[in-house]
Amino acid sequence: MELRRTHNCGELDSQDISKTVILSGWVDRRRDHGGLIFIDLRDRWGITQIRIEPVSKAYKDAKRLRSEFVVSFKGIVVERPEGMINKKLKTGEIEIVAEEIEILNESLTPPLHISGEVNSSEDLRLKYRYLDLRRPEMQKNFLIRHKLCQIVRQYFSENNFVEVETPFLMKSTPEGARDFLVPSRVWNGRFYALPQSPQTYKQLLMVAGFDRYFQIVKCFRDEDLRADRQPEFTQIDVEMSFIDVHDIIAVVENLMVRIFKNLLDIEIKSPFIKIPYSEAMSKYGSDKPDLRFDLQIFNISDLVVESDFKVFSDTVKSGNVVAGICARNCAGFSRKQIDDLIQWVKDRGAKGLAAIKVKGTDWEGSLNKFFTENIRKNIVRKMDAKDGDLLLFLADTTELVFSILGDLRIYLAKNLKLISENEYKLAWIVDFPLFEYNSEEKRYVARHHPFTSPKLADIDKILTEPEKVQARAYDLVLNGMEIAGGSIRISNTELQQKMFRALGIGDEEANDKFGFLLEALNYGAPPHGGIAFGLDRLVMILAKCISIREVIAFPKTASAMSLMDNAPSVVSQVQLDELGIKLKK
Amino acid sequence: MELRRTHNCGELDSQDISKTVILSGWVDRRRDHGGLIFIDLRDRWGITQIRIEPVSKAYKDAKRLRSEFVVSFKGIVVERPEGMINKKLKTGEIEIVAEEIEILNESLTPPLHISGEVNSSEDLRLKYRYLDLRRPEMQKNFLIRHKLCQIVRQYFSENNFVEVETPFLMKSTPEGARDFLVPSRVWNGRFYALPQSPQTYKQLLMVAGFDRYFQIVKCFRDEDLRADRQPEFTQIDVEMSFIDVHDIIAVVENLMVRIFKNLLDIEIKSPFIKIPYSEAMSKYGSDKPDLRFDLQIFNISDLVVESDFKVFSDTVKSGNVVAGICARNCAGFSRKQIDDLIQWVKDRGAKGLAAIKVKGTDWEGSLNKFFTENIRKNIVRKMDAKDGDLLLFLADTTELVFSILGDLRIYLAKNLKLISENEYKLAWIVDFPLFEYNSEEKRYVARHHPFTSPKLADIDKILTEPEKVQARAYDLVLNGMEIAGGSIRISNTELQQKMFRALGIGDEEANDKFGFLLEALNYGAPPHGGIAFGLDRLVMILAKCISIREVIAFPKTASAMSLMDNAPSVVSQVQLDELGIKLKK
Repeated sequence: MELRRTHNCGELDSQDISKTVILSGWVDRRRDHGGLIFIDLRDRWGITQIRIEPVSKAYKDAKRLRSEFVVSFKGIVVERPEGMINKKLKTGEIEIVAEEIEILNESLTPPLHISGEVNSSEDLRLKYRYLDLRRPEMQKNFLIRHKLCQIVRQYFSENNFVEVETPFLMKSTPEGARDFLVPSRVWNGRFYALPQSPQTYKQLLMVAGFDRYFQIVKCFRDEDLRADRQPEFTQIDVEMSFIDVHDIIAVVENLMVRIFKNLLDIEIKSPFIKIPYSEAMSKYGSDKPDLRFDLQIFNISDLVVESDFKVFSDTVKSGNVVAGICARNCAGFSRKQIDDLIQWVKDRGAKGLAAIKVKGTDWEGSLNKFFTENIRKNIVRKMDAKDGDLLLFLADTTELVFSILGDLRIYLAKNLKLISENEYKLAWIVDFPLFEYNSEEKRYVARHHPFTSPKLADIDKILTEPEKVQARAYDLVLNGMEIAGGSIRISNTELQQKMFRALGIGDEEANDKFGFLLEALNYGAPPHGGIAFGLDRLVMILAKCISIREVIAFPKTASAMSLMDNAPSVVSQVQLDELGIKLKK
Repeated sequence: MELRRTHNCGELDSQDISKTVILSGWVDRRRDHGGLIFIDLRDRWGITQIRIEPVSKAYKDAKRLRSEFVVSFKGIVVERPEGMINKKLKTGEIEIVAEEIEILNESLTPPLHISGEVNSSEDLRLKYRYLDLRRPEMQKNFLIRHKLCQIVRQYFSENNFVEVETPFLMKSTPEGARDFLVPSRVWNGRFYALPQSPQTYKQLLMVAGFDRYFQIVKCFRDEDLRADRQPEFTQIDVEMSFIDVHDIIAVVENLMVRIFKNLLDIEIKSPFIKIPYSEAMSKYGSDKPDLRFDLQIFNISDLVVESDFKVFSDTVKSGNVVAGICARNCAGFSRKQIDDLIQWVKDRGAKGLAAIKVKGTDWEGSLNKFFTENIRKNIVRKMDAKDGDLLLFLADTTELVFSILGDLRIYLAKNLKLISENEYKLAWIVDFPLFEYNSEEKRYVARHHPFTSPKLADIDKILTEPEKVQARAYDLVLNGMEIAGGSIRISNTELQQKMFRALGIGDEEANDKFGFLLEALNYGAPPHGGIAFGLDRLVMILAKCISIREVIAFPKTASAMSLMDNAPSVVSQVQLDELGIKLKK
């Protein structure tokens, strides 16, 4: 390397005119204009135009340049000729007249576009990830991720949290998701597990008196991947001692205010609204409601139980529900549009959808006659419906009605363009049930995890009426996505043992798996609790991406493969022998 | 929790007198004095004395308190009586007169002391790690670690480095150390590997144009553990583009200056000295010399080849060496002390040790007669020996002589107390050989790793005279320990292929293992290089600890076990079946 760069490709402007500079970067574009060669030189910071004149020493080598060659230019900053100025670029007023050139590396023709629109399948992008990451759009995502991480760590450090690294090679205690296992060579036949979260360790750090802990840390779950999941993901992990729910909420709200201010220059207001779980389910059909639009769900069961419309009245009489949403100003929907909605809900398991257009005090269409004026008035009043609105009703089991209406409100909001791109709505969901019934395993499982504390008033019901026990748990929801979840933990051995029993985990199994935690609680555990953020998802939202793979440098596919290096791969017999394992079949 | 703390246990002093406060923490000590109860209440920040008078509402419950109970007190800050003031503590001038008490949790009698001297075996400390970590000495280590991590990240962020997370589930490409493997459930028979370092990924990030990358990241090596090794360890990982060796050295030196200033308030001077590898080996018998003391090694082969002392002259004539060190003012060593030294070198494989006491211009003892006055003068002059010094010589193969003398100088320095606790000596070791011969595998292996660039002048010798090729590599040494190592990388496909060939890695194997990297180098790789710090070791030195286990929250034993939770452990048959593996035997 002869030429040592003096500036990057994104910083020179008219104030630098007549300076001699050296820039290094990649050939974004080369144009030949009547003997002149123009190179758009690109690096992480931007693009600067280089002009190479035929008299220049650099001319001969510049002729060889192709897309993505790595090159340095020495030259003088000059003003661009009138009419060539590009106001959109910081460097758009100047160009460099090249005096020297040094070609640092060549490039084959890249299999995907670096500049401009993505023209490739995601598979190709993943195979050539190092080229995909060279795209300015991708680099922007990782700069956001980088900044977010620094903001988060600085915030917690300022607030007396200690960053402590927890182990990656830990004990396998699968409860909920599957562990990734790591065979031990020293102890053949035994395995480590990769952490699904540092949950037990952060609790032990509280027992150890660290008082306030945080870590940005990789976690692992060997689950079948859904669109928005990765086998390894990153968590902002937090735990505090001598606190109650509102302390953690305050710490997190201040963090979110700072993130939005420092990263997006957006002022968000705290405190965020708190919605009890049951209200979230009945109003929005979801425990992570998107609050950027209204389209609230209304249960009209009590209003229609006596109506002549037997589909509704029978449904209610048989213990199920009728509920609906009011689509504002959608009475103009065509037959086709309505039919599409009906098909949409049927695809999700509904038997049908009643669509009613509000026309003054009447309802358009055949359903009008089944309802007395009084019933219609009550429904319209409850749903705050107006002339020109479209009412959409489902009649079915509680679970089905609310979950489909929850999805329908999002579907409608997108189609009706009710969602503003630059709006951020944060809310806490609280008062979660501690347990949920797993009909496959025929037992109650922990809705968060087995270390979540019940509300004190509900402790007596843990073994007798588990379905009625509420948790001291809270989720933070942003624009319809859960970005964090946490709880106050159990800090008492007896209560923790009782919890294991409620989950159908026998004393022996509990001791075998979590004996160290149960024992630790015997030696002066402080009251403690915490929260964990899904970092990938948070970055995805802040960077306005549609997939978490856009904010993970080297992600896996939905079948947990790395298309770049073909991991996982076959390993040598020697490696297997040393680990004392054999492949089946 | 009724009482919400207003202060921590380390902050109140005479300025707070007459304030009503609430403190929470652990009972460090309880003393009963004529009806009065005194509690030393401890948290992460310190200890505050609580006085509970018999008339206090808190008295009855305070009677129940035992060591390590978790408790909150509400009370008034008062001045301690004359004679009870403890100037050593920030809180030593005040105490709290308790008005209310809330016992938050109880504790069994802890199996190890929290305050005062460690009274337990390391095994017991590891089993009850959550109690061991409660010891103020341990907490101090983790606060240093925490601060160091923040300083490092802030430094790199300020300097335009981007933090990018690299994958933990990667491809197995063992070269040097053993990989930890992770069986794939989705792809039975295939395995991921945990990263030994993010080496290839950080190079790909340079190809992707990130320009400057850093990460504090866990790495994994499945090696038989030595005292100072752990199966998982933490690395400060750095990579830069468009740079040469001196750029990386400058970035690292500024970082070290900042670390010492901000963490220890010590001004260290840069640039640090640079010592070529060959000089380090011949002067200090080590590529990580401790420069806090002198005790340099001198090769006197040429001076003794013609002496009458056949042990020396025959050694040199047969192609081996005679070298020694001069222990200042040690001529007073007893026969026993000398015999111990002789035994010490014999334990390390030497045949013997010649110990010579300098007495004016003569040497004390029987060896004097074998050397002419001229030879003695030359030796004394070369070694700058003075009356009263002790000369210690070994005669053997180059390798043995320098490695034992290298250890001996450290051993002597410790025994002679030549090492100042508060001195920090940093040095760069440069001009490393690119290869070293592995006599077991009968091939050259990479001294750093296969991606290290040779010096440009030596490229032609890679395949013909590999032993003569020097690397563009550099290690940073602090007080006799390697704390960082790095290199300029190969950024050219052809050279990288040639390097693999020199290492006996065939083209097919190279493509199979590293095809993605070879291909990436084809698409415009910039010149790049980097460095990686062993974070655990750096913290260990800065915290003045003698083992890295003192700066790792939950370390493994030398047999890679976690004594707290007994990982690795047996897993269920279901888990193995899903992974498609069986245990051998």
